[in-house]
Amino acid sequence: MRSEIYEQPGVVDQIAAEGDLYREVCAAAAARDVRFVVYAARGTSDNAAVYGQYLANILGGLPAGLAAPSTVTLYGAEMAFRGALVFGISQSGRTVDVAEYLASAGARGAFTVAITNEEESPLADAAHLALVTHAGSEHAVPATKTYTSQLATLAMVWATWSGRSDLVEALRVEISEAMTMTLELDSWVAEVARSYRLIERLLVTARGVNYATALEAALKLQETCYLQVAAYSAADLAHGPIASVGEDLPVLAIGHPGPAYEVMVELTKELRTRGTDLAVIAPAGAMLDLAEVPIKLPGNVPEILSPLIAILPAQLFAYHLAREKGIDPDHPRGLSKVTHTR
Amino acid sequence: MRSEIYEQPGVVDQIAAEGDLYREVCAAAAARDVRFVVYAARGTSDNAAVYGQYLANILGGLPAGLAAPSTVTLYGAEMAFRGALVFGISQSGRTVDVAEYLASAGARGAFTVAITNEEESPLADAAHLALVTHAGSEHAVPATKTYTSQLATLAMVWATWSGRSDLVEALRVEISEAMTMTLELDSWVAEVARSYRLIERLLVTARGVNYATALEAALKLQETCYLQVAAYSAADLAHGPIASVGEDLPVLAIGHPGPAYEVMVELTKELRTRGTDLAVIAPAGAMLDLAEVPIKLPGNVPEILSPLIAILPAQLFAYHLAREKGIDPDHPRGLSKVTHTR
Repeated sequence: MRSEIYEQPGVVDQIAAEGDLYREVCAAAAARDVRFVVYAARGTSDNAAVYGQYLANILGGLPAGLAAPSTVTLYGAEMAFRGALVFGISQSGRTVDVAEYLASAGARGAFTVAITNEEESPLADAAHLALVTHAGSEHAVPATKTYTSQLATLAMVWATWSGRSDLVEALRVEISEAMTMTLELDSWVAEVARSYRLIERLLVTARGVNYATALEAALKLQETCYLQVAAYSAADLAHGPIASVGEDLPVLAIGHPGPAYEVMVELTKELRTRGTDLAVIAPAGAMLDLAEVPIKLPGNVPEILSPLIAILPAQLFAYHLAREKGIDPDHPRGLSKVTHTR
Repeated sequence: MRSEIYEQPGVVDQIAAEGDLYREVCAAAAARDVRFVVYAARGTSDNAAVYGQYLANILGGLPAGLAAPSTVTLYGAEMAFRGALVFGISQSGRTVDVAEYLASAGARGAFTVAITNEEESPLADAAHLALVTHAGSEHAVPATKTYTSQLATLAMVWATWSGRSDLVEALRVEISEAMTMTLELDSWVAEVARSYRLIERLLVTARGVNYATALEAALKLQETCYLQVAAYSAADLAHGPIASVGEDLPVLAIGHPGPAYEVMVELTKELRTRGTDLAVIAPAGAMLDLAEVPIKLPGNVPEILSPLIAILPAQLFAYHLAREKGIDPDHPRGLSKVTHTR
C-alpha cells in the first residue's frame, strides 16, 4: 500500500499527458446532445464519482447524479436514457452490477464511457468508449493510486469539456509536483497516527469538492484500521449527526481555500467550542490554525483540483494507523480486490 | 417524538386521499418531456429522496439522482436543466440551499416541485408546484412523521406517474393499517432497546428500496442517542466497510421479500458467520430466522412500499434507546428544528 501511495504522482502525469484522447472523447460525447450525467460505481470508485458529480455541475454546467445500480440489476428497471452521458467507474472493470448498468444504459440511449484500469474487461466492453487510468497493477487491497487516477481522469474530462485549458495545464505540470510535496508529510503523519492509535471511531467532514475526499478518507480508515468512521458533508452534519459529536468523538476536517472554505472555517470553530479533538488537512490558513493536529497541504493548487492532493495524507494516515494497531494494511480481513455484487 | 410516531398512519391516509392532486401534478410534469429527475434535500429529507430515486427508476423509468446543492449555492454552477424534473424536499420549506437550488433549476429550464409541510415557505414559492405533506406541526427535533409523509408523497407521485393503480390503492387502504400493526411492536422494541443500552456504535444495512430506511434509521440513532452509526447498502458494505465488522460491532439489517431479498439473506448469513450480533427488521422469513434480535414486520405490504413501515420500529428503537441512555429524544443537544446551511 505504501509503495502504491508513492506511485501516484507518476500515474497522474501519465493521464495528464493524453490531452488528445480527452479532446476526442469530449467531441464524441458533445455530438450526442447531452442533457445530464450519471455515474455508476461502487466503493472507492463511488467516491471518485462524487468528485465527478461536482465537476460535471461546476465545469460542465450539467446536472449529474450517482446511479443506484440495483434498480437495474435487481429490480429490472427499464429506463429511458436519451440525453444521458453515463460513466461506469471500476478499477478492475469487473464490478458486475456496474458493467450491467452501463450496458443497459447504452442499449437504452445513453452515451457510455468506462473509466477503468483494465482495457480488456467487461466494463470496457460494455461502454461506447473506455478511458484507461494507467494505474498499473494494484496489489494492496485498499485502493490508493486507483482513486487518484480516477480523479485525474475525471478532471481531465471536465476541464477539456469546459475548455478550461488552465486546469488541463495545471494537471499536466503542477499536480504531480504538489502530490510529491504532499507525500513529504509522511513522517509527520506517522507521528500523528501514533497519537491516534487507541481510537475506535472518527468522524470525517468536508464541503464542496473535498466532500469526495472525506468519503474516501473514511473508507480507507474503515478498510485498513477497522475503525468506525462516518463521513459527512459539513451541511449534512448540521442536519443531525452533529448531535453525536462531543468531546468523545475525534473529528478530521478537510478543507481548501475556495468557495466552500468559509463554511468549513465556521464549522471548525463550532467544533472547537464543543471541545472536539480536531485534526485538519488544509493549506495554511484559518482552518489549520484551529486544529489540534494540523496537517498542512501545499497551497498552490487550484481548489477544484485539490482533492488530488488532499487525499494523500489520509491514505498515509490509514497506512500508519493500521500498523500502529498491528494490522497488515495490505490485506485487511474479509476483503478481496475484486468485489462481486449484483 | 413518541406521539408524533403514532400520528403517522393518519398522515399517510391524508396524503393518499388526494389522488386528483397527484394526477394533476403528473400531467403537468409529463407535458414537459422529462428526461431525468433530480432531488435536492438535506438530512431526513435527503433519505426520503433516496427512496424517490429508486421510485423514479423502477416505476417512472427515468434516471434520477441526488443534487449536490453546494455546486449552485457556493460554486455558482450555471447548469442547463432542460428535460429535468427537480424535486426540492424540506419539512419547513426553509432549508436555504435547497430553495436556492430549486429556484436556480426552475430559472434554467427545469420543471420544479416542492415537497414540504409548509405551503407558505421559500421552497414552495421557488417551485412551479408544491405538494404539501400534511404532517402538521412537528415539535420533536428528530423528524419522524415528516419522513413517512415525504415517502408517501413520493410513492403517490410515482405510482400515479406509472399508472400503477394497484399501488395507489394500497397506499389508500392498506398502508396505514400496516403502519398501525407495526406500531404494536412498541413494547417489544422497548425491551430490545434496553438490551442495547450500553452500545456506542452500530452499523445499519439494507439493499434496494430499503436502503433509504437504513440511512434514516442511522440518522435517527445518531440524533437521538449520540451513537456513531454508519449505514451502507449491502453492496457497498462488501466493497470495504465489512472489514470493520467483527464481533465488536452490532449490526441492524433491514429487509423485505422482493428483488433485493436474496442478497440480504446472503449478507445476514455471512454476518452470522463472523459472529456479529445481528438485529433484523423484516417480515417472517429467512432473514428474520437468522437474527439474534428479530423485529417482525407485517408481511402483506408490496415490497416497493415497505419503506413506509420498515422505518417505524427504527424510530421506536431510537426513542426508547435515547431514554435508556438518559437523553431527552425530543431535544437532542446541538440541534434545532430548522437548519440554516448555504
